[in-house]
Amino acid sequence: MKSKDKFEIISEMAKRRGFFWPSYEIYGGVGGFITFGPLGSILKRRIEDKFRNFYIRPLGILEIESSVIMPGKVFEASGHVDHFKEPIVECLKCKRKFRADHLLQEFAGMSDTETEKLTLQELMNEIKKRNIHCPECGGDFGKTEQFMTMFTTTIGPYSEATGYGRPEAAQGIFVEFKRIYESARGRFPFGVVQIGHALRNEISPRQGPIRLREFTIIDIEFFLDPEDLRCPLLKEVENDTLKLIIAENKLKGIKEPIEVTVKQALNKAYIKAEWQAFFMALAKRFLVELGVPEDKQRFIEKLEWERAHYSVQGFDQEVYLERWGWVEVSGHNYRTDYDLSRHMQFSGVDMKVFKEAEKGGRRFIPHVVEPSFGSDRLVYIALEYAYKTKKNRTLLSLSRELAPIQVGVFPLVSKDGLPEKAKEVYQMLIREGFTVEWDESGSIGRRYARADEVGTPLGVTIDYQTLENGTVTIRDRDTWRQVRSKIEELPELLHAYFRRKIDFEDLGQLIKR
Amino acid sequence: MKSKDKFEIISEMAKRRGFFWPSYEIYGGVGGFITFGPLGSILKRRIEDKFRNFYIRPLGILEIESSVIMPGKVFEASGHVDHFKEPIVECLKCKRKFRADHLLQEFAGMSDTETEKLTLQELMNEIKKRNIHCPECGGDFGKTEQFMTMFTTTIGPYSEATGYGRPEAAQGIFVEFKRIYESARGRFPFGVVQIGHALRNEISPRQGPIRLREFTIIDIEFFLDPEDLRCPLLKEVENDTLKLIIAENKLKGIKEPIEVTVKQALNKAYIKAEWQAFFMALAKRFLVELGVPEDKQRFIEKLEWERAHYSVQGFDQEVYLERWGWVEVSGHNYRTDYDLSRHMQFSGVDMKVFKEAEKGGRRFIPHVVEPSFGSDRLVYIALEYAYKTKKNRTLLSLSRELAPIQVGVFPLVSKDGLPEKAKEVYQMLIREGFTVEWDESGSIGRRYARADEVGTPLGVTIDYQTLENGTVTIRDRDTWRQVRSKIEELPELLHAYFRRKIDFEDLGQLIKR
Repeated sequence: MKSKDKFEIISEMAKRRGFFWPSYEIYGGVGGFITFGPLGSILKRRIEDKFRNFYIRPLGILEIESSVIMPGKVFEASGHVDHFKEPIVECLKCKRKFRADHLLQEFAGMSDTETEKLTLQELMNEIKKRNIHCPECGGDFGKTEQFMTMFTTTIGPYSEATGYGRPEAAQGIFVEFKRIYESARGRFPFGVVQIGHALRNEISPRQGPIRLREFTIIDIEFFLDPEDLRCPLLKEVENDTLKLIIAENKLKGIKEPIEVTVKQALNKAYIKAEWQAFFMALAKRFLVELGVPEDKQRFIEKLEWERAHYSVQGFDQEVYLERWGWVEVSGHNYRTDYDLSRHMQFSGVDMKVFKEAEKGGRRFIPHVVEPSFGSDRLVYIALEYAYKTKKNRTLLSLSRELAPIQVGVFPLVSKDGLPEKAKEVYQMLIREGFTVEWDESGSIGRRYARADEVGTPLGVTIDYQTLENGTVTIRDRDTWRQVRSKIEELPELLHAYFRRKIDFEDLGQLIKR
Repeated sequence: MKSKDKFEIISEMAKRRGFFWPSYEIYGGVGGFITFGPLGSILKRRIEDKFRNFYIRPLGILEIESSVIMPGKVFEASGHVDHFKEPIVECLKCKRKFRADHLLQEFAGMSDTETEKLTLQELMNEIKKRNIHCPECGGDFGKTEQFMTMFTTTIGPYSEATGYGRPEAAQGIFVEFKRIYESARGRFPFGVVQIGHALRNEISPRQGPIRLREFTIIDIEFFLDPEDLRCPLLKEVENDTLKLIIAENKLKGIKEPIEVTVKQALNKAYIKAEWQAFFMALAKRFLVELGVPEDKQRFIEKLEWERAHYSVQGFDQEVYLERWGWVEVSGHNYRTDYDLSRHMQFSGVDMKVFKEAEKGGRRFIPHVVEPSFGSDRLVYIALEYAYKTKKNRTLLSLSRELAPIQVGVFPLVSKDGLPEKAKEVYQMLIREGFTVEWDESGSIGRRYARADEVGTPLGVTIDYQTLENGTVTIRDRDTWRQVRSKIEELPELLHAYFRRKIDFEDLGQLIKR
């Protein structure tokens, strides 16, 4: 029997314990949609909050929230109506449709760097030349065509009012730039972030949470003076190392990344804008915080023909996953003034900013550096990297900020007043704002195991001693060690623990065994 | 000059200070979409988090997150494809389209209770009879037709794969009921909530944040045993009073609500299900927490022909707003087993639950009681009710849990090392996880005024005394009183204050003036 890979193990656990699963199973499933269950939706929110604490608040980045459905004009201006397309090919026999480039990748071993370069005609020629047929029925393929991968709809009762599902949250920021800049009250440079659902009408998505038609995007648009791309915070990260596969080496077929410090990457002009290098260093640190070691991360530069239409330099941050190899986890694009210029042109509204200088001042269209993440992938990545086994048991070693359930509360036995006492502790912790799971079924060992499997860092057990002296045991998920503490001290201790002011051994008196 | 009403004042402030504004202004605007700016997006999130703390965590309700675009089958089963429609009428001259019922309400003074009852033909007859013409060009109207108010799209490359934008988050829960029930591990009854964007393709939305095409919905589906609708938590709320306009009185034309306790409402069978009464009482308490006094709230029962197709009893919770009068803020529907039964029928998948009983057990389709809120309206309502003036200055008296900015940090003057010292305090508070605003421009009075206008409860000022003894002043937004405390004690003091363990006067030594 083939042993299960991590994706299979995580997916099975994610389904059973309520992290996530493919949506609409009762209707046979629809590719590219997942549902986050009770634990997954908390984990996802915690990852987004960690991102806020890591990226947004310390940098004073402003967060906004706008709509998923946007009027056609926005994406005509942004270039998406013209460029957001994928090559599609139909089987003449069974009428199934496929991504032309994916066929060449899957059945002719071409890389995406190679397929990205091909025109529609060339894609068709390659498919013919390499004798690729419909993988479902063996039929011949027809002509390759462009398929627009935005979801299309109509806004209101007039059929000409086309609307699109946004493929990125970025445009919600660009079109509202003037108002947001107003509330930034003259601060410059400044960043704006939006975390929200986005839609890409993929042709035949697979890969579970990795390739979705609806997903949550985290787009930071950082607005800069094009004449001053310096980042005053660079000092904080300049000695961080980055593994880079630069375009030049990629073209030479070199697959190994070079490892350089942020400072070196800028000195050698591997990365054009200081702010972009800064955000890449932060992105690496953020993934380390999510549990991905440095040697499982790299950045790969996009070649000219691989880049999005708005980008003059782009790096993908990639993380190594057991099943799929290197997978994109964030994109770092230098978008210049492309988007604001286009919206100015299409709307006729001036979006220049004014900057005072010694002699008078200067008006300019800000440039934009964009780090962009997907929450759904981050959830999966955090789970795959947290997955451990200990004595044949599964243990999710999520950091204490990420664990969906913070504390499990367990009455040792279901009699003699222990459940009642435990319920008091449970209610108190809920009132204190903790996410708490109540579990009284089965042996205490099984309950610990269930809690370990979903990464609950602390287990509070109410036993006979509790009734005598008002103390409980607290168990550590990773070491399985236990301490004893007073119930009335739990709130302060746990707040301090989850705010990382103290560690497990500070929670009480260690129980020797 | 006509004095501004609160809606105008709040909207102007919301735009200027970055709470919210109509989206896509640079393209002339598109009705029914708003953007939450930097302060609004935090306020909205805080309201949603307060809801979680109030409704979700104490009741052990499970939260999920699913997609906004859903396959057609879901809404065929749910009945939305057949029922989610509004009557529309086109001007024969200018081709503009209008809601037929809204025309009768606006130009013939009919109530929505009256118009809801009319068939398409009757609507048309009334429009003719009352001689209503196009309000834009005076033209005659054509035939009244049904307009489906779900956004329609196509999922993937096959044109027959219709998808809809979800008009409620509830269906994302119903179609995944089996999986969610699995992760509830036998708990019953139990609730599931989803907070997320929803879409309704309104014909001509006005009223700013009150009627939107895209909005955030909070749907709780509480699953019950139809043979046991009792709510064990009823004791907690049974003496709360509710103002009810019951269907019977509404039919008699009585417009004044009756005021009864929850217990009475159930005894007199005004409300059918105990859980529904419980959730209505919580909804009232929640709105009180958001700042809406009891006498500005009421519940109005839906008549048979006003109810959604899935509901056997429905109440709207209404809040009084200065411009629009009574506005729906939450809906409380007893959906029975309608949705789960329909999905069973359409998918062929069994969704019954098993309940052990003394003699064997019983399998049944759960019944559902649904409280449903809209976040966007809650944001507006919280702002309108927080709006105060004091000595001709605007002051937003948002509760400390809701205020977007928790602490303002102000160097008294921009010299002598005060900004540097203030920056240290600012950074420390950011690291502690607080939402902090830095402001050093203009007089300290103006900075306090700017902070009061957006509801920042505390202002920390760094002055010359700070450099001497490491103390700062903390100012209270509502009373403008000040206390002095040590910088190193700020983190603990502020955590305690925002967790409501202490009040303003406990933050330090009162400064007498």
